[in-house]
Amino acid sequence: MIGEHSSKQYDSDLETIRSKVLLMGGLVERQFQEAMNVFHNGNIAAGERVIKDDDQVNLLEVELDNACSHLIVRRQPTANDLRVVMATVKVITDLERVGDEAAKIARTAIHLHKRGIGSIDHSETVRVIATAAADLLHDALDALARLDEKQAIKLISDDAIIDRDFRSIMRNVITYMMEDPRTISASMDTLWVAKAIERIGDHAKNIAEFVIYIVEGKDIRHTDYAATHLDAGT
Amino acid sequence: MIGEHSSKQYDSDLETIRSKVLLMGGLVERQFQEAMNVFHNGNIAAGERVIKDDDQVNLLEVELDNACSHLIVRRQPTANDLRVVMATVKVITDLERVGDEAAKIARTAIHLHKRGIGSIDHSETVRVIATAAADLLHDALDALARLDEKQAIKLISDDAIIDRDFRSIMRNVITYMMEDPRTISASMDTLWVAKAIERIGDHAKNIAEFVIYIVEGKDIRHTDYAATHLDAGT
Repeated sequence: MIGEHSSKQYDSDLETIRSKVLLMGGLVERQFQEAMNVFHNGNIAAGERVIKDDDQVNLLEVELDNACSHLIVRRQPTANDLRVVMATVKVITDLERVGDEAAKIARTAIHLHKRGIGSIDHSETVRVIATAAADLLHDALDALARLDEKQAIKLISDDAIIDRDFRSIMRNVITYMMEDPRTISASMDTLWVAKAIERIGDHAKNIAEFVIYIVEGKDIRHTDYAATHLDAGT
Repeated sequence: MIGEHSSKQYDSDLETIRSKVLLMGGLVERQFQEAMNVFHNGNIAAGERVIKDDDQVNLLEVELDNACSHLIVRRQPTANDLRVVMATVKVITDLERVGDEAAKIARTAIHLHKRGIGSIDHSETVRVIATAAADLLHDALDALARLDEKQAIKLISDDAIIDRDFRSIMRNVITYMMEDPRTISASMDTLWVAKAIERIGDHAKNIAEFVIYIVEGKDIRHTDYAATHLDAGT
């Protein structure tokens, strides 16, 4: 009886944490989206809001870490249940870092537009990887919500595409700066934005790996598990 | 009796984890040091060793995360004891990311030297922040080993100096590239190295914050706790 009661309480506590993690996920998704709007459209006030929203994300990180600790102390989960909590703690860290990167993008975009640069070179290629990273983040959160391992496996290879596209942007921007050194300062800002997007892709990939850890019980970080399970249709 | 026995076992298990975390810390410290040597001296074979060593750091991350989970399930720590374990899990993440950044530095340094660039511009200013970041990391691990809150508080303000110096390097390198566009490609590599160093400083600061969390029970992330406690001599 006590076991069952405690297990039900555990499920309910965990569900509360899970929905708050997804809320935090929605918040950083929006932050990232807004930051990219600032980059493209130069709305300084919107950029300042993105930076300010980071406070809320930071508060959620501390609050959720506490909630996970309380859950462990009060419910003393089994090894299997604990795995979910520990993966959640790691996901929280990744989401907080996505918020940091979004705030960085907003700061750089403000810097870029305050100097009166109307149209940004390479903005279309940056838009392409930003869309890919936003999709990756969205799908990773979706896989977390539905504990969809198949989707999580697919996402891990998507991140490799973002990394490749980032390197291609970098090469193009360097060539461009060499051809017209007057563009260096603005090009550098564009590169920092692209770098932040690439990192958001990495964090989304981490979240996908934790989904697989939760479902399969396999820690696939630093392995080629996803690559070998993609074609096998696992 | 059972309580005391269990608590002693907990202490001994935790001590095993703690010494392994410090071992992992020593490993990434050496990785960072070696990566900077490759940047300055262009020893390609040494650079490849740094990249290979990252596998060992990654293995330690997975192993230590598991050890922390096992400790929680087997010893069911009190809230106070659990705080130390949860902070340790976070420190492990930061140490793994330091290893990643060191591998990135090695990769960029190899790229730089393979193109036959003998002496690197700005290498002395990069050396200065690399030394500051290495000291910060070393002192953060030392504060963790001795649970020295005073030292941890001091380190948090040291990180702000590294961030400021990074921004100054960035401005100088941009000016330099504008004056001589032929240096753009090598300058960009130098900037990525400086960026990785700045991030290592951030991770060291995070570790210092977790030391304060362990000792004080206060989660000071995203607060100005360190600044207000520095002069008060707390």
